[in-house]
Amino acid sequence: MTKFALTPLAATLPSTVPFVGPETQERAMDRAFDARLGANESVFGPSPKALAAMKAAEIWMYGDPENYDLRLALAGHHGISADHIIVGEGIDGLLGYLVRLFVGQGDAVVTSDGAYPTFNYHAVGFGGTLHKVPYKDDHEDPVALFFKAKEVGAKLVYLANPDNPMGSWHDGATIKAALDDLPDGTLLILDEAYIDCAPVGTAPNIAADDPRVIRLRTFSKAYGLAGARVGYAIGAPDLIAAFNKVRNHFGMNRAAQSGALAALADQTYLQTVVSKIETARQTISEIGRENGLIPLPSATNFVALDCGRDGAHAKAVLGGLVARGIFVRMPFSAPQNRCIRVSCGTDLNLSTLRRILPDAIAAAEKG
Amino acid sequence: MTKFALTPLAATLPSTVPFVGPETQERAMDRAFDARLGANESVFGPSPKALAAMKAAEIWMYGDPENYDLRLALAGHHGISADHIIVGEGIDGLLGYLVRLFVGQGDAVVTSDGAYPTFNYHAVGFGGTLHKVPYKDDHEDPVALFFKAKEVGAKLVYLANPDNPMGSWHDGATIKAALDDLPDGTLLILDEAYIDCAPVGTAPNIAADDPRVIRLRTFSKAYGLAGARVGYAIGAPDLIAAFNKVRNHFGMNRAAQSGALAALADQTYLQTVVSKIETARQTISEIGRENGLIPLPSATNFVALDCGRDGAHAKAVLGGLVARGIFVRMPFSAPQNRCIRVSCGTDLNLSTLRRILPDAIAAAEKG
Repeated sequence: MTKFALTPLAATLPSTVPFVGPETQERAMDRAFDARLGANESVFGPSPKALAAMKAAEIWMYGDPENYDLRLALAGHHGISADHIIVGEGIDGLLGYLVRLFVGQGDAVVTSDGAYPTFNYHAVGFGGTLHKVPYKDDHEDPVALFFKAKEVGAKLVYLANPDNPMGSWHDGATIKAALDDLPDGTLLILDEAYIDCAPVGTAPNIAADDPRVIRLRTFSKAYGLAGARVGYAIGAPDLIAAFNKVRNHFGMNRAAQSGALAALADQTYLQTVVSKIETARQTISEIGRENGLIPLPSATNFVALDCGRDGAHAKAVLGGLVARGIFVRMPFSAPQNRCIRVSCGTDLNLSTLRRILPDAIAAAEKG
Repeated sequence: MTKFALTPLAATLPSTVPFVGPETQERAMDRAFDARLGANESVFGPSPKALAAMKAAEIWMYGDPENYDLRLALAGHHGISADHIIVGEGIDGLLGYLVRLFVGQGDAVVTSDGAYPTFNYHAVGFGGTLHKVPYKDDHEDPVALFFKAKEVGAKLVYLANPDNPMGSWHDGATIKAALDDLPDGTLLILDEAYIDCAPVGTAPNIAADDPRVIRLRTFSKAYGLAGARVGYAIGAPDLIAAFNKVRNHFGMNRAAQSGALAALADQTYLQTVVSKIETARQTISEIGRENGLIPLPSATNFVALDCGRDGAHAKAVLGGLVARGIFVRMPFSAPQNRCIRVSCGTDLNLSTLRRILPDAIAAAEKG
């Protein structure tokens, strides 16, 4: 800074981004990706009814700061009352508000080593101290997470079910049973971004009023509205009301509000997407196996492919794909970084992957 | 909270909203407003090219976290380089990030009594101590603001030019000259949300590199994209880069990015809107005078109408309009709260106002 003093906390923060966007990579390569399979977006797109609703929105008006219609519809969808629901600018936005509400300088938070980095970004951004536990057999480990939370007196513990980046999951009963060991004073952030792609029973049967848990959901994945920025949280009403202390009340895009409402109403379309996701997961797994990679089971809209060696090798495979026009990402931490992570694509996307992957692996083998 | 401890700061914050939305009022009245003239939106809407661009956006993709294309276009528009520009979720979103970067518990900030409440919301939300100076003849008073900033050692001082809610303005030379008295260590937030509606010369000729000032602009007013949530800031590159420490990198709606880009490119459309705004200001002023109210000069897309008595009377006039289906707002603080604030409307909106206002005033007179 030239002459101004950031807060002591802000001065310590790096000016970095949790993820480099594919557009940045395209500009650096001076070419567009042929297949965009790295951000777990839904290539199948949103319901046509959502597109029509967004088109009809009167974008000259600010959105309703209460997100009333959407919250009411979500309440109906989940069989709860609307005071259990807060809508925000994607799960990323809601995570920021949630961390801000609970975490001050030196407060402990717990997550898994290699789990969603945007949670870490917010936790560090508000002065929190991050404690990480390892994955266990490529799964986030609720027992270890809650044990660590007790050990460090965590304000927040983060658990994604299904998990990103591995695609693994626990059944809901396992999560619910583990809650018995969640320490008093620790709030569980249960990130269910991928729940729409998961088997029945993956969502734990937890009351919306349960004060131990806040659940995060999104329209960015199976609903196909990543670019609209609509997420929501389900929790006890006093916790939900606290978001009104800090959120950007007029932060929601008005067309996005309408689009999410229409998308939610079109569950038939959602189910067709879920079927396409299941088929694409199988195809990605086949392509992986054809090339000597081991596909991990997935309850998400992506598949982690184990490249069979260390992180450097997987990174070389990834680099080979990127250089050949396929945007993919990979886990950040060992040993999960032996994998690359491939989002579900269209048939065309996946034929491109089938064609390109052998070359990318061959180039990685050569070093 | 049931069992969880918010941060000490968050615990002190009220769960309130800076503004009640018109939709909330409509739900309470169980009727829709006939004219929406309270939020300084642009009833004239955005450029048809912006609408087409938003429709064409691939909303299943996350937006570019760098906002690269839009920043480059804005840089060209302003004749500066893109590292002087940060794009965010409206001015409200940018204000939140800016306050977070600079203001910690007990840090002083300065604004005008009755100026934009969302700045105050953020300042208090991050623990800042608000110091207010009065308006002077219905104008924000840069001399008094900067004097107060020196007195209290403010980190930030907020000044809107043109002003909301009064519509008044200073010419750019006045702002620039006042800067000589801005104390070292105080950053001026110059909110230019309404600059597109103002006379030439209202924007001060300040270098984008000037480390004393950050300027805020928006697509929500004359550009007609309030519901899209696109604002930007212009400042010195090291200040601009600091936003990357705290912002929601993937927070921008992808369609909004495209819409803003197309809106910026269509300056011809913008000028037709500005003409319509000027005509509507004259009409609102006429309607006010016809009813014994005094229109204040305005460089914005609204007109403050002086109801000639105190805040209680203006509030009664406002209540009469709202009850009769016209959404308007009014200043929060005396003596500006002797006015109601009417946004520019369509011809139809303003004929409705012309028809309704006498009844609203008569009802207010009766008490």
